[in-house]
Amino acid sequence: MTSVPAPPYDGRHLIADLDGCGAALDDLALVEAARRAGVDAAGASLLKITLHHFGPGMGVTGVAILAESHISVHSWPEHQYAAIDIFLCGARHDLDAALGAIAAILRPQNIRQLTHRRGFGVGCP
Amino acid sequence: MTSVPAPPYDGRHLIADLDGCGAALDDLALVEAARRAGVDAAGASLLKITLHHFGPGMGVTGVAILAESHISVHSWPEHQYAAIDIFLCGARHDLDAALGAIAAILRPQNIRQLTHRRGFGVGCP
Repeated sequence: MTSVPAPPYDGRHLIADLDGCGAALDDLALVEAARRAGVDAAGASLLKITLHHFGPGMGVTGVAILAESHISVHSWPEHQYAAIDIFLCGARHDLDAALGAIAAILRPQNIRQLTHRRGFGVGCP
Repeated sequence: MTSVPAPPYDGRHLIADLDGCGAALDDLALVEAARRAGVDAAGASLLKITLHHFGPGMGVTGVAILAESHISVHSWPEHQYAAIDIFLCGARHDLDAALGAIAAILRPQNIRQLTHRRGFGVGCP
């Protein structure tokens, strides 16, 4: 492959692993509330949501498709663990606020996180 | 917050930025085909898909909810750029094959990628 210049970075992708969650991670409504709180706190524009419940006592997946990319929550109640992705284009959105809002509902004892800059020159719609 | 031990790592999250894509990134069917090829190449189990087209000549978002987490494709045709996420639990799935299958359809000139290990002790369903 030939090398092409990377466009300016204005996308950010926050990956967070939440351990020791005190909330009931098999509760579809609660996981959905966390996802929704994250979208609202980020100031993002929700287009579509997809939810899947693996069954009673099992995990939940929720993905919000946004005008600015996506926010996802996957939960493993048997491990009190949730995996969060907050991927937003544009500089005006608050990823940390989104994670804070999600964590306030899922109540982890520990959060491991990184923020990865992703390259493109596009603003949000 | 108190520190709790991280559970064993068996999740992997491949983030890839595809620049200089030769394919028509405003083509819903093509982006969906790329997403589907990625799921198949990974050997993952598809549960639900969500697609959104921002309009003629504009980008497409496709997210596959998997038994093993998710694969997402966001495209910006005006920048010939696509953002790929391949997040899979369990050791038996092939993230590189998934990215290769997606790239074979989107035809980027350059790929920037990283693979992030995410911590939990759960296997796939």
